[in-house]
Amino acid sequence: MTTPNPVAVIMGSQSDWPTMKFAADTLDALDIGYDALIISAHRTPDRMAEFARGARDKGYKTIIAGAGGAAHLPGMTASMTPLPVFGVPVRSKALSGQDSLLSIVQMPAGIPVGTLAIGEAGAVNAALLAAAVLALSDEGIAARLDEWRTSRSNSVALEPKDEA
Amino acid sequence: MTTPNPVAVIMGSQSDWPTMKFAADTLDALDIGYDALIISAHRTPDRMAEFARGARDKGYKTIIAGAGGAAHLPGMTASMTPLPVFGVPVRSKALSGQDSLLSIVQMPAGIPVGTLAIGEAGAVNAALLAAAVLALSDEGIAARLDEWRTSRSNSVALEPKDEA
Amino acid sequence: MTTPNPVAVIMGSQSDWPTMKFAADTLDALDIGYDALIISAHRTPDRMAEFARGARDKGYKTIIAGAGGAAHLPGMTASMTPLPVFGVPVRSKALSGQDSLLSIVQMPAGIPVGTLAIGEAGAVNAALLAAAVLALSDEGIAARLDEWRTSRSNSVALEPKDEA
Amino acid sequence: MTTPNPVAVIMGSQSDWPTMKFAADTLDALDIGYDALIISAHRTPDRMAEFARGARDKGYKTIIAGAGGAAHLPGMTASMTPLPVFGVPVRSKALSGQDSLLSIVQMPAGIPVGTLAIGEAGAVNAALLAAAVLALSDEGIAARLDEWRTSRSNSVALEPKDEA
Amino acid sequence: MTTPNPVAVIMGSQSDWPTMKFAADTLDALDIGYDALIISAHRTPDRMAEFARGARDKGYKTIIAGAGGAAHLPGMTASMTPLPVFGVPVRSKALSGQDSLLSIVQMPAGIPVGTLAIGEAGAVNAALLAAAVLALSDEGIAARLDEWRTSRSNSVALEPKDEA
Amino acid sequence: MTTPNPVAVIMGSQSDWPTMKFAADTLDALDIGYDALIISAHRTPDRMAEFARGARDKGYKTIIAGAGGAAHLPGMTASMTPLPVFGVPVRSKALSGQDSLLSIVQMPAGIPVGTLAIGEAGAVNAALLAAAVLALSDEGIAARLDEWRTSRSNSVALEPKDEA
Amino acid sequence: MTTPNPVAVIMGSQSDWPTMKFAADTLDALDIGYDALIISAHRTPDRMAEFARGARDKGYKTIIAGAGGAAHLPGMTASMTPLPVFGVPVRSKALSGQDSLLSIVQMPAGIPVGTLAIGEAGAVNAALLAAAVLALSDEGIAARLDEWRTSRSNSVALEPKDEA
Amino acid sequence: MTTPNPVAVIMGSQSDWPTMKFAADTLDALDIGYDALIISAHRTPDRMAEFARGARDKGYKTIIAGAGGAAHLPGMTASMTPLPVFGVPVRSKALSGQDSLLSIVQMPAGIPVGTLAIGEAGAVNAALLAAAVLALSDEGIAARLDEWRTSRSNSVALEPKDEA
Repeated sequence: MTTPNPVAVIMGSQSDWPTMKFAADTLDALDIGYDALIISAHRTPDRMAEFARGARDKGYKTIIAGAGGAAHLPGMTASMTPLPVFGVPVRSKALSGQDSLLSIVQMPAGIPVGTLAIGEAGAVNAALLAAAVLALSDEGIAARLDEWRTSRSNSVALEPKDEA
Repeated sequence: MTTPNPVAVIMGSQSDWPTMKFAADTLDALDIGYDALIISAHRTPDRMAEFARGARDKGYKTIIAGAGGAAHLPGMTASMTPLPVFGVPVRSKALSGQDSLLSIVQMPAGIPVGTLAIGEAGAVNAALLAAAVLALSDEGIAARLDEWRTSRSNSVALEPKDEA
Repeated sequence: MTTPNPVAVIMGSQSDWPTMKFAADTLDALDIGYDALIISAHRTPDRMAEFARGARDKGYKTIIAGAGGAAHLPGMTASMTPLPVFGVPVRSKALSGQDSLLSIVQMPAGIPVGTLAIGEAGAVNAALLAAAVLALSDEGIAARLDEWRTSRSNSVALEPKDEA
Repeated sequence: MTTPNPVAVIMGSQSDWPTMKFAADTLDALDIGYDALIISAHRTPDRMAEFARGARDKGYKTIIAGAGGAAHLPGMTASMTPLPVFGVPVRSKALSGQDSLLSIVQMPAGIPVGTLAIGEAGAVNAALLAAAVLALSDEGIAARLDEWRTSRSNSVALEPKDEA
Repeated sequence: MTTPNPVAVIMGSQSDWPTMKFAADTLDALDIGYDALIISAHRTPDRMAEFARGARDKGYKTIIAGAGGAAHLPGMTASMTPLPVFGVPVRSKALSGQDSLLSIVQMPAGIPVGTLAIGEAGAVNAALLAAAVLALSDEGIAARLDEWRTSRSNSVALEPKDEA
Repeated sequence: MTTPNPVAVIMGSQSDWPTMKFAADTLDALDIGYDALIISAHRTPDRMAEFARGARDKGYKTIIAGAGGAAHLPGMTASMTPLPVFGVPVRSKALSGQDSLLSIVQMPAGIPVGTLAIGEAGAVNAALLAAAVLALSDEGIAARLDEWRTSRSNSVALEPKDEA
Repeated sequence: MTTPNPVAVIMGSQSDWPTMKFAADTLDALDIGYDALIISAHRTPDRMAEFARGARDKGYKTIIAGAGGAAHLPGMTASMTPLPVFGVPVRSKALSGQDSLLSIVQMPAGIPVGTLAIGEAGAVNAALLAAAVLALSDEGIAARLDEWRTSRSNSVALEPKDEA
Repeated sequence: MTTPNPVAVIMGSQSDWPTMKFAADTLDALDIGYDALIISAHRTPDRMAEFARGARDKGYKTIIAGAGGAAHLPGMTASMTPLPVFGVPVRSKALSGQDSLLSIVQMPAGIPVGTLAIGEAGAVNAALLAAAVLALSDEGIAARLDEWRTSRSNSVALEPKDEA
């Protein structure tokens, strides 16, 4: 019997994938299993409800949800699961993600979404935050996360370089 | 057998009522029946789904939805009903409704929400827009709406007055 | 005798057409007749007044109006017709449509404009909202709109794909 | 036969008067005649058109127009008169006049509105700008404007004072 | 021997307490232990470093950090601990928390802060998110969180009420 | 003896010329004489003071001033001349002219700058507004301005066209 | 013979004093001499030029300049003196100091203004920054500034307190 | 024995160098020595603390710190050194430096960062402001800074030129 993946990376549409792939790649780098799924709050509300309500029983520990514009996926998912949900505001065409950010972060009291930065950096960080949560009860992940952080620190050069 | 009310005025919480009451009062002034309901996208997603999916069969013709902050009620309702949905961004504490506005108006292609102004003016106008829709197939409403508009125009004074 | 087109798609200038064409294409997809017209609130106020005042008698049921910058066309049209008016904020050069959005959505109580998202998504949605209004009294449109929505839902893939 | 007033101070509603009164008071201080009129772009578009088209023939030299929210009065007036139009963005409830400012200042090429600051300062300055225009061909106004400016400069204290 | 508190609620100054108290009260309601501490990133950087570096060993599982203006406490704490950090943007005087939000949420790739809404709602939600994290490995908390969520849903009235 | 040019078109730097050229071209189209000058408020404050203080005596009737970023040229010029000053906010690199707009339009009571739209449209409109001012006492300009406006109105096509 | 005061605290009007007094009080606390002067860029440009050009010779070492709205005083002063100028954006009525901030901080390359936070905090910090500059060549000030910073750090309580 | 460089130019990552190089180049032009260092507040907090605490003893007189997004480097550095710190907000991908600006400039009372404009202009000006500070006690720098400013003023052409 296989262990279920602890993280679900969901996104509102295929067009969010170039951003959300940064979350997937970071989870890969930390050797954390995940499922990447397209779930549109607006076009597939049933799929969203079924996913969100079943997420805990399926064995997910945390959910990363990315969406852009009037981004309802992270908040609506959070309304239907007790699992921690982390939201990634995807850059939008006209407003560059300012609408995505406010639609995700400004949740009313009662339904939290831990929101990360707009765009790729936010996707990377959602994966790292999920890892930090999982690390609380998984020493392997804790060790790999510590190592990842240390290597990042060590990779900072002392002096800037002109480009060749 | 009674005729069902053609308009549903829904809102995310009791705290939206002081704003949404302006929609209700305007519908009253135009003698248009409505039901006012609290439906929280985040706290009562089941109630929302049941309402939205059943709205057309219940006889509603149009839905007015008001919410504040990361306001998901209008868009999520629109995702589950073919009826026209009009959204009212309620003023929020920190951002004065800028978050509400963007969360409602910036819907992705496929699921429209006709969005009105932030706050009370938006609530009045949502009712007038619902009336304009109903007036397309109801001469009584058409006549009352014309009258309402004319009386508003006639009430504009020619010169400003200092306050007493 | 031919039936008049139920929708007018008006815009402030030729430069709005690449955006507003998305509304036209969506209406085409739903087999809904429309007239596409350039009407500048600022350069042709007479044309606007004549159009708006005559729109109901000409047989239009709903008006889609797109404009950018200090976008006055949707609101001014709404002030001169009892028909439902839906506004599309066109992206502007310096402010990316933030000015267009506020100029259209922030109408004072009395004259509603149901406002959609900035840009192409808003144009698509204005057409869908017009369709939803027409569907209230036209079973054919209702059926085609339902079908359109269903096919959109069904087209959402389950998993994201890397680009080839 | 009396000389017509050279300035018209128009505003969208009675609620704009507490702001626009600052324009009127400044014109009074400079002994420049004006008419203060309520003209709503949205509720009385006919009154606006009649006023704007007839303004030059009535003898007005310049028009000061104040409005709030989706403020269309200044721009629409400018579209129907060759006279210089100066716009005053009135503070709005939710957005504090940011919507008013953008709706007035972001006019497309072809129809200018010289826009002043949001609120009372803008109303004062609209009057001063009108005076500066009139001063070009009226030595009395030129002299009074110079005197007003000088007295303002002279009234600036050298050191700040604590309030009693 | 006592069990250490699993949550630290830290804030930049005493003036953040009226906001952050909402986090503390929510943790109390869920019977989750916490320490509330004032740690100023700017005035007590040593205290911050000592706290952040020692947090995991002290037994904390998650950190809630609130700050306003150029809010550096959440991000700097996150840079010095592998624990999940949740940030609460406190409303600021001039910019109403827009500066706080951006300073907290826009972290670069590598150091995540799960950010909640501006103000009290964000503080409540930070506590709920911490609870959701703890619930992953604590059935008692999981049960209490489920109960809390259910009771919140059940408390939503069906219809709005005018105030007495 | 030649008549002095009635309009000065000043700008903060050579980099503003691609924008301000639209003002110059519009004045050319209306056959209105002008001088185009680079005057930097920050780098050549003396040149600015000498220009502004001498502008009326030199025969200028109105001044068009364009600048970007923390744009002080329009307001500072207005502080040193009684002539009408019209400001053009030039698009800036990071903030796309939002900084330019606020630095120009938000003048305190006492020193007006009639502000136009950000960028090229604003430059065109500044020229038209200057023309409208000059037209008050110059029938030739009045006639050419009327003609310009009429031809612009007549050039508006009735229907949008796809691009070839 | 007395030593001249090393700091000038200038402001655009008496109405800025309630904010700028925080700079003065902080200088007092550090026992640093200063002159507080009202200098309006717009109403008293001559006074500004005379002050700025003579500031170095008068013995000032640094200038603190506060202003609101289209705030030109800091930047224009900086254009006429080689001394370090620190700017304080004063909160404005409509835009809460966002206009003040951008008008001060977004200076073009060539003329720097070191800008502090909007409002009272910015005024305090301008004084501290001036002190830091003076401390480079005045051991007494250096010692008092160190002491001030230490006492601030020490005054941070360990735990938040409910208000009595 | 060599004199230590009086300026440190620090930045959060290599990606800030294309912006911060403008500060370095300006210091070169003024013949002022500096060290350019990469110090990440988030990835290398120890390096930051060591640098900041030792900066005065190392002989630095002023620090220029550039960072983007949730930019904590300038403020955190300022919290650990009594030296004057000047901050440069680097343009960010999604928000074009608006987040960088607010994270740097909105420091709470007690820890000042003199903030310059977003991007390259800010980097140039940070160098000039550092020069102005050093010039207070270094006649050579004072002379070179005066010369630099004069040559900049003299280089302003009188009339704009079309591009070839």
